[in-house]
Amino acid sequence: MTPPPVSYVDRLGTTYPLNSPRWCADAAEADGSPMPLMLTDRTGGITRSQIDASVRSLWRYSASFPLECASPISLGEGCTPLVRRPFGSGGGEVHFKCEWFNPTCSFKDRGASVMLSLLRQQGVTHVLEDSSGNGGAAVACYATAGGLGATIMAPSSTSPAKTVAMRAYGAEVELIPGSRQATADAAVAAHGREGRGGGSVFYASHAWHPFFLQGTKTLAYELWEDLGFRAPDNVILPTGSSSWAGPGTRNVMGCDIGFGELLAAGEISRRPRLFCAQPLACSPICTAFLEESGRSDGKPTPEEWNAPVATIAEGASIARPVRLRETCDALRRSGGGAVRVAEGAIKAATLELARSGLYVEPTCAQAAAAYHELLASGAIQPAEVTVVVLTGTGVKATPRVAEILGVEL
Amino acid sequence: MTPPPVSYVDRLGTTYPLNSPRWCADAAEADGSPMPLMLTDRTGGITRSQIDASVRSLWRYSASFPLECASPISLGEGCTPLVRRPFGSGGGEVHFKCEWFNPTCSFKDRGASVMLSLLRQQGVTHVLEDSSGNGGAAVACYATAGGLGATIMAPSSTSPAKTVAMRAYGAEVELIPGSRQATADAAVAAHGREGRGGGSVFYASHAWHPFFLQGTKTLAYELWEDLGFRAPDNVILPTGSSSWAGPGTRNVMGCDIGFGELLAAGEISRRPRLFCAQPLACSPICTAFLEESGRSDGKPTPEEWNAPVATIAEGASIARPVRLRETCDALRRSGGGAVRVAEGAIKAATLELARSGLYVEPTCAQAAAAYHELLASGAIQPAEVTVVVLTGTGVKATPRVAEILGVEL
Repeated sequence: MTPPPVSYVDRLGTTYPLNSPRWCADAAEADGSPMPLMLTDRTGGITRSQIDASVRSLWRYSASFPLECASPISLGEGCTPLVRRPFGSGGGEVHFKCEWFNPTCSFKDRGASVMLSLLRQQGVTHVLEDSSGNGGAAVACYATAGGLGATIMAPSSTSPAKTVAMRAYGAEVELIPGSRQATADAAVAAHGREGRGGGSVFYASHAWHPFFLQGTKTLAYELWEDLGFRAPDNVILPTGSSSWAGPGTRNVMGCDIGFGELLAAGEISRRPRLFCAQPLACSPICTAFLEESGRSDGKPTPEEWNAPVATIAEGASIARPVRLRETCDALRRSGGGAVRVAEGAIKAATLELARSGLYVEPTCAQAAAAYHELLASGAIQPAEVTVVVLTGTGVKATPRVAEILGVEL
Repeated sequence: MTPPPVSYVDRLGTTYPLNSPRWCADAAEADGSPMPLMLTDRTGGITRSQIDASVRSLWRYSASFPLECASPISLGEGCTPLVRRPFGSGGGEVHFKCEWFNPTCSFKDRGASVMLSLLRQQGVTHVLEDSSGNGGAAVACYATAGGLGATIMAPSSTSPAKTVAMRAYGAEVELIPGSRQATADAAVAAHGREGRGGGSVFYASHAWHPFFLQGTKTLAYELWEDLGFRAPDNVILPTGSSSWAGPGTRNVMGCDIGFGELLAAGEISRRPRLFCAQPLACSPICTAFLEESGRSDGKPTPEEWNAPVATIAEGASIARPVRLRETCDALRRSGGGAVRVAEGAIKAATLELARSGLYVEPTCAQAAAAYHELLASGAIQPAEVTVVVLTGTGVKATPRVAEILGVEL
């Protein structure tokens, strides 16, 4: 029996067919802002026999994607190592998922590969993205690899070094005065709405487009396969990425979708608990989750932080996640939680990881810091199988690591 | 029947047992400089049934290593993607081996993982390396991951940004006045000789130690497995790495050893042709190879370049390869050749690769430039299976890519 086709679906339950490009709902939110889309559930995920083991990329899980893709834009993304190491003083071991083993050295390649492959199939020929970092590099990379044009909007304050890769990929970089938020607003205003129905430039935002989550969900499939077709007990996800648009919602949502599909397919018996880590200085997801759960972590209240505040986990300092509500739901559904991490702990975890051979952006070291807290509080046990997702390499964050080390550049 | 044990062997044929650490021969070269070591041949390589397919790292080929290693220092190195893309106007396709999908984002992790694992097993507790770039990062990374101390010597002119990763890994960075060559000489003088017999600090040089080549030889095993247990027709290797000590000899020698073992094991019927690419401005290997072969490429003679000269393929500008003779022999044995590439062609290839989604260091783009020349001259045919090895990411070379793009940083 053929399962019913997958559709886009908005927060009101309105569905839209998948046969044309679309990044937001027709209806707007109460405040006039665009309403995000998800996809309707597949009737079930895929089983291990549906993995195409001959493919060394996340396209080995393509049977789980909502559209068949005749010609994926693929550069070897995914199939990253899961490295097991002793970590911390508790005697426990952590499984580190090393997501910088990717074409542009960050997890965002997962989303970009799937999103742009499916958009190209829908007829899109030129994409717009707004980003000052990893997201822009990933979209620029896959656009050029797939023969698509790309425009990347970035705040005018972005250092030229950050846009060199995007320009090398051939993307047009448009600098927008003002904050990161202003850039995002400009992207929506300039091309976004027109693109909804198929203008010449389509807003292929890593924050907005539900196809992006189809790429990040492969993280769940991979962990399951890495662990011998078992789900881990816990997955700790850093949720301070260099994006205004929902620090970390993509990985939390991706794991929620992927493990949900595996549960529906009968491949796992329960979801792993998902934990989200954010810097105390800017923690919209954690704060919302804790408030809704009626819990307190005993740390300063949001009012005391009056975000945005500077944090070493750069870029997590704007606070309007696109899928805040859905992300909190996902954390709750998994039985997991949220950890707000102080600056000192993020810095210490960055060095602790490096001393263990894992050189990552401070932005993702906060997940390792959260591991220590969860262990100390008894929320997780050393004997459990815990995955810490490391989303990006320290090589892209030299100035911030130098600051932690006290080295003058 | 147990094969005879593998030994170190020097250029005079003197062998030394593998049971203690050693990086050079007892005998010196005629000019008084240290004499490099190789290992004696295994009686045969490994067959496909000896691959440990449960391991996602180059340690899947550990049956081919000269010593059994009870406890490898591994961080998911190797198992990099082989990405097939149309390239150039000739209508041919190239298989790009993307070596920046590695812990420190370069191919040097292969050598460092195997070298430091075996040295630790021999009792070494503190290593010395000299490098200003990828080699130093790789050795610092694997040393700390394996609980070893590390000292990295670098020229005092090295930009602080280049040593941030080494410091984050906990390595001691010693800055040496003068040229890159002076640093290498200092390393040999200060600790090198004492280390030969087992001092407290052992000279674990990526340029000198034969165990390093045991790591890089896994590139050959992987290509063979990637291609369905067949050898490619041609492998083009960039030989401008950021090292005084033998630009690119490690990958040429690694492929020579690996494919030689597969030939001996009966797994392949002939070696692929190995081609080495170097910048015209500094091409000691290519120049030596062409001279010895009595060939000319019609390009300016070495005298006209009076090396070292600045090249965009940074770091290839010192010209005293440790294993020049052995590398020329390897190229000849394979039926391959050497291509000297002009600066303009290196720059153009860097951008051409990026426009194809492959963002790499100019240092390795020269291999892609060499592909065009070999195709144009008829030395290789579009229908042949040609691998271009891309050794490092453009992310580590932002200033040089910016220069090519004309972007001011």
